[in-house]
Amino acid sequence: MRKILAILMAMLVSTFAFANDGKKHKLKLASTWEGTTPVLGDAVKNFKTYVEDMSGGRIEIRIDYPSKHKSSFGILDFVKSGQYDLGYTASYYYKGKDPKTMFFTALPFGMTPAELHAWYEFGGGKELEAKVYDKHNIKVFSAGDTGTQMGGWFKKEIKSVDDLKGLKVRIPGFGGEVMAKIGSIINTIPTGELYMALEMGTIDAVEWVSPAFDMGLGFHKVAKYYYTGWQEPSAQTQFFVNKKVYQKLPDDLKAIIETASSRVASELYAKAYFDNINFWSKMKSEFPGIEIKSFPDDVMAALKNAANEILDQEAAKDPLFKEILDSQRSFLAKAREWTKISEFAYIQKASK
Amino acid sequence: MRKILAILMAMLVSTFAFANDGKKHKLKLASTWEGTTPVLGDAVKNFKTYVEDMSGGRIEIRIDYPSKHKSSFGILDFVKSGQYDLGYTASYYYKGKDPKTMFFTALPFGMTPAELHAWYEFGGGKELEAKVYDKHNIKVFSAGDTGTQMGGWFKKEIKSVDDLKGLKVRIPGFGGEVMAKIGSIINTIPTGELYMALEMGTIDAVEWVSPAFDMGLGFHKVAKYYYTGWQEPSAQTQFFVNKKVYQKLPDDLKAIIETASSRVASELYAKAYFDNINFWSKMKSEFPGIEIKSFPDDVMAALKNAANEILDQEAAKDPLFKEILDSQRSFLAKAREWTKISEFAYIQKASK
Repeated sequence: MRKILAILMAMLVSTFAFANDGKKHKLKLASTWEGTTPVLGDAVKNFKTYVEDMSGGRIEIRIDYPSKHKSSFGILDFVKSGQYDLGYTASYYYKGKDPKTMFFTALPFGMTPAELHAWYEFGGGKELEAKVYDKHNIKVFSAGDTGTQMGGWFKKEIKSVDDLKGLKVRIPGFGGEVMAKIGSIINTIPTGELYMALEMGTIDAVEWVSPAFDMGLGFHKVAKYYYTGWQEPSAQTQFFVNKKVYQKLPDDLKAIIETASSRVASELYAKAYFDNINFWSKMKSEFPGIEIKSFPDDVMAALKNAANEILDQEAAKDPLFKEILDSQRSFLAKAREWTKISEFAYIQKASK
Repeated sequence: MRKILAILMAMLVSTFAFANDGKKHKLKLASTWEGTTPVLGDAVKNFKTYVEDMSGGRIEIRIDYPSKHKSSFGILDFVKSGQYDLGYTASYYYKGKDPKTMFFTALPFGMTPAELHAWYEFGGGKELEAKVYDKHNIKVFSAGDTGTQMGGWFKKEIKSVDDLKGLKVRIPGFGGEVMAKIGSIINTIPTGELYMALEMGTIDAVEWVSPAFDMGLGFHKVAKYYYTGWQEPSAQTQFFVNKKVYQKLPDDLKAIIETASSRVASELYAKAYFDNINFWSKMKSEFPGIEIKSFPDDVMAALKNAANEILDQEAAKDPLFKEILDSQRSFLAKAREWTKISEFAYIQKASK
């Protein structure tokens, strides 16, 4: 008996030298996107895999998709209330609840993915995000960027601001508010009916995402002008963690969740870039009639002014909104100077 | 006694439900850079922290810097031989040993960080890297990109290819070979003597990195033309792991090392971008005489041709070199088309 006891004690000592809490943490995650959604569907599954693998099974994640939880844009409430421990979503979907949430996904005429990432990690972004989400009882981790979005598919060329006035456009969110301000008529048509609406002329243009996401919807078959973007120069997604759940986790599991998020984020941006490269290449060769266009300078200026007016109005109402806006604006001004002489100059001069 | 035994058994059962190997893995890491090197010094320390935190102390990493191991560019041999378990370095430093290693850090006229990352993760890059490093008994993880480098500090403006002929330039690596091919005289002067050499006219130009790394060396005080880059559009660093050491680790620790690398890589790129933004802003305001220039189109074309000739010669000698070169070239051709209509078009049109 003593011998058995001694062996057991020795085993315990060796094990507890790297003590873990000895508990299985079963966490429920609600995702905005289905598991079959390009890029994003894989990202949430990879998160589960990395967390479970690194924790040696001490964390087990159950993912519920919208087909189950029925509320793609209810993730903030799910995680805030504790109905779910974790969420996978994009911050700007909660703009109606709190306009400040949009700063962490995308702003018209805002930062590129690299600029936003630098601001977020080292320029005070993360801390400002925490100020926004603390009161929702949520800890946020960046989950990756789907990249600079295209401006959308247009049936007619846009030559002046007047061409946008009265134009029927499907463009959601803040981009839609900006276009409405300069006189476009903003439509909200369900995804499944968009192609028909564009073909029939119910709408004149549709803003979606980028080649990897657009191609399957076939807009290029009925609208030949593919405009470069202005409304979402980056598009960051997020993991939400219920703060009480997070705080109760031992430190090693906290580090595992944070680090898994970072890996998922990095791979998501690379995968979106990769897919866009390949889908654009395919689209261009199969549909040589597609014409890439950018809005003329005066149209861009009008959109930018409209965006700034809306932002300034909001900032006047909410000091934290103003604080974040000022932080992003001043960082962007400096950041763009560097971007222009580094990656931008290289692409401009070396791609000839 | 029975009661104690029962309690101990219960503790063991609960613990071994999430069994780990119960061992402390003490790993030695050799770094190319000192712990005080901007950006890179923090990255290797963060790697240690993330791995140790996530493993609950089951991995312990000791970092040796060049001041101790005396061989910044000996990391490949250190890890290959097992003298060190881990290394932190940049692949292209081993170009003399194996020219294929350079593909994983940077190529003149090659991919930007986002393009290279997409190729590496999803376009076959990682697998080709494994083919190169398998025979060195090394498992590689990408450790992050310091970003698009500047073309260097020049005392005189470069207006034609003739201006580069006979010019005395400090530029190491493949970039140096390319400039030598078109007639520049390549100098290798120790870092500490570079400023003086540039001031005295021993050299006419110096290629270093980018504002965050350049400013401290003061080149802007003696050479006013700051050229945009062509020679290192990205600059990837790497973690090396001795393959035998890696294979012996339990699966959870393998995942922890891989995921920690990914987080370090993502943060390193953001930090380099952030620092370059701030240093460039500071440099520009304190030294308004600095002029940003790009080489004229015919100079860029001559450099590109020279680079391609050297690459093609090497490819003729080594089928795997050719395989990687072909893979990068065909991916780059497609990738640049997407980059131009997404981030590039956005910056061009929205920054006015």
